[in-house]
Amino acid sequence: MKAEIIAVGTELLLGQIVNTNAQYLSQELAFLGIDVYFQTVVGDNLGRLKQAITIAQNRADVIVFSGGLGPTQDDLTKDAIAEVLGRKMYIDEDAMAKIEALFKGRGTVMTENNRRQALIIEGSDPLPNETGLALGNAISQDGKYYIILPGPPKELIPMFDHQAKPWIVKHVLTSEMPLFSKMLKFAGIGESLLEEKLIDLIQNQTDPTIAPYAKEGEVTIRLSTKAPTKAEANVKLNEMEAKIKARLPQHLYANIDVPIEHTIVHLMADQGLTLSAAESCTGGMVMETITSIAGSSSVLKGGFVTYTNEMKEQLLGVPHHLLEGTDAPGAVSAETAQEMAERVRTITNSDFGLSVTGVAGPGESEGKPAGLVYIGIAEKGKETEVHQLKLHGNRESVRNRAVKAILYRLWLKLQS
Amino acid sequence: MKAEIIAVGTELLLGQIVNTNAQYLSQELAFLGIDVYFQTVVGDNLGRLKQAITIAQNRADVIVFSGGLGPTQDDLTKDAIAEVLGRKMYIDEDAMAKIEALFKGRGTVMTENNRRQALIIEGSDPLPNETGLALGNAISQDGKYYIILPGPPKELIPMFDHQAKPWIVKHVLTSEMPLFSKMLKFAGIGESLLEEKLIDLIQNQTDPTIAPYAKEGEVTIRLSTKAPTKAEANVKLNEMEAKIKARLPQHLYANIDVPIEHTIVHLMADQGLTLSAAESCTGGMVMETITSIAGSSSVLKGGFVTYTNEMKEQLLGVPHHLLEGTDAPGAVSAETAQEMAERVRTITNSDFGLSVTGVAGPGESEGKPAGLVYIGIAEKGKETEVHQLKLHGNRESVRNRAVKAILYRLWLKLQS
Repeated sequence: MKAEIIAVGTELLLGQIVNTNAQYLSQELAFLGIDVYFQTVVGDNLGRLKQAITIAQNRADVIVFSGGLGPTQDDLTKDAIAEVLGRKMYIDEDAMAKIEALFKGRGTVMTENNRRQALIIEGSDPLPNETGLALGNAISQDGKYYIILPGPPKELIPMFDHQAKPWIVKHVLTSEMPLFSKMLKFAGIGESLLEEKLIDLIQNQTDPTIAPYAKEGEVTIRLSTKAPTKAEANVKLNEMEAKIKARLPQHLYANIDVPIEHTIVHLMADQGLTLSAAESCTGGMVMETITSIAGSSSVLKGGFVTYTNEMKEQLLGVPHHLLEGTDAPGAVSAETAQEMAERVRTITNSDFGLSVTGVAGPGESEGKPAGLVYIGIAEKGKETEVHQLKLHGNRESVRNRAVKAILYRLWLKLQS
Repeated sequence: MKAEIIAVGTELLLGQIVNTNAQYLSQELAFLGIDVYFQTVVGDNLGRLKQAITIAQNRADVIVFSGGLGPTQDDLTKDAIAEVLGRKMYIDEDAMAKIEALFKGRGTVMTENNRRQALIIEGSDPLPNETGLALGNAISQDGKYYIILPGPPKELIPMFDHQAKPWIVKHVLTSEMPLFSKMLKFAGIGESLLEEKLIDLIQNQTDPTIAPYAKEGEVTIRLSTKAPTKAEANVKLNEMEAKIKARLPQHLYANIDVPIEHTIVHLMADQGLTLSAAESCTGGMVMETITSIAGSSSVLKGGFVTYTNEMKEQLLGVPHHLLEGTDAPGAVSAETAQEMAERVRTITNSDFGLSVTGVAGPGESEGKPAGLVYIGIAEKGKETEVHQLKLHGNRESVRNRAVKAILYRLWLKLQS
């Protein structure tokens, strides 16, 4: 089974955005056992789009489209496919009702061009959009399969995962044994060290297959196996998971695809534990990350962003002599991190208090280099932990890595 | 002048890496005034590679290749091009001497396959590799131009910039004018409404061209024009910018590619203004966004994440009767948003105090629906502004849109 991915959008051809959809879709198709032989990018131009479709029909069985489903004149993906397949288009009533309800709810007038987002090609199955307005389509004709997805990754990913993948399994992979996967999630370890610890398992992999990959500071392993039933697959997947866990007990935090903050919030909620934070260089990112998880309101009470020394003193009560003066350790120090963590915990009467203080960069601060960060974790009745981090990268990386580091340390503390 | 980019590598088709080379090359070619009409990705397979080259010859004048120049058996880019063009290959002596010297310097034995990296197609100009071993090639035949570059970005970028670009200017762009662009950034308006406001300009566009696109809740327009000099281009670009600005003065926040928080931080820093925030449902995201900008430390003093009612009372002093009781407006109300904004401004003695309180979802809270959010902006000596938002989407979207909305309102207030 051969596939081609066609990404549509002049913004890709101008280099304004990078084609992460092609990467995502390639990975997902590979896991389904479908070989991607070509990726094509074409602009918002009807003639060239039709030309790309015709070429793809000659070399692929499955053609997955991303982009060009929006409301504007230059969103032409469905038009091009409909013309090539010789089919009409009509408005899908459910998708249209959703779009109208949205505009009504907002109290704004729906412009006429928004109707285009509800278009469906005659004979296709609609792929509802959970996180946006443009309707996806899936259709088969003459032994070829066409999957039509929106461009924004936050719409494409859930649509592929929840709508297109089951459609492909049902309509395309009819004679294959189904593939079952399990995601193992790791924190506090890099991809190369993780690979080293598991090198013999990875090199001798046959069934299940073991695919490690790194993404935004986290390492994930996907175990996959083909089996007639889920129960038979689970036996093989669980056995391999146990082997891997025994090698990396301090790093494997989940066996489903969730970020570590999800694991932390659920662990703490189950035990009735509460959390607070005092953030300097991360500017609220730790709390923002925790509160991205539904249900975090029973765990995170709140906290402080104390970006200036004045605020560290006034809001948290960090002693002046720690922050300023010739012998002061300064805002970026283990002492200040410890005070911040302990004080936010006490003020909010939480079980745990977190703190982050450091130099996000670019450039140094207090004569300390960019990337130097201290994190603190205060726990009721326990000694406060403080860690020094020396992080690489730009401002964004330093802040992201500091957040990952403190979440990892908190998770580890919750294990003990 | 039309171009196609062909990236070669099975790792791209497996989704192991993202095709950042296509983005870089597209941007660079656009700036040279060469229109990229297609990007193709093909695996390390001679037959499919030759097929991709033949297709590209029919639709492009300039074909830029990245990848497949390494020492191994599956590095086949030069082989495929040489076969399609009917030319021989030989070893470039300079490149070979460099490879041999490198191995000698390392004290390691050069394996025979490394000779492949010094291959040059008969009749091409060599493009030396400053940061690696594989030699680039540039060749013209039958009015078509072939630029052959290595895959690793740290080799490709300097080779393109220092070797290929001058080659293209000399051999390809003998009579063309360079392209100049300008980015206009908008907030508080969706793509479809923006397009409607500018529909006559967009439909009649000839020079400059007007390309709108939406990305992560922001709308951007790229104006582009060809001109002999930058000064002449600027006359045309500035004139169109002024026309667009006159239509959307309340939305055009920048004429360079920056997010709105960048504009806000710089506007406030220039006027010596300070800011603080009290966040409930956004959990720190407003402050995290502001502090993502280098230099924000002179603007954002800090603030509070008050995720629970208890914290709203204890840390901010929001009156209990507003939050709880049968007649209380509740935490998610205009009254609470106003109190939060005013109190955080006063406590931190800032010029502006922001507040966000709402239901991020999933599911309702206090009997209020997910997506209902109140934002407040308190300004020293002015009446506090409160806006009710009814936002659509999942928890992440609601939070992101609430942040975009309050930043837009703050920017608007800074204009008055």
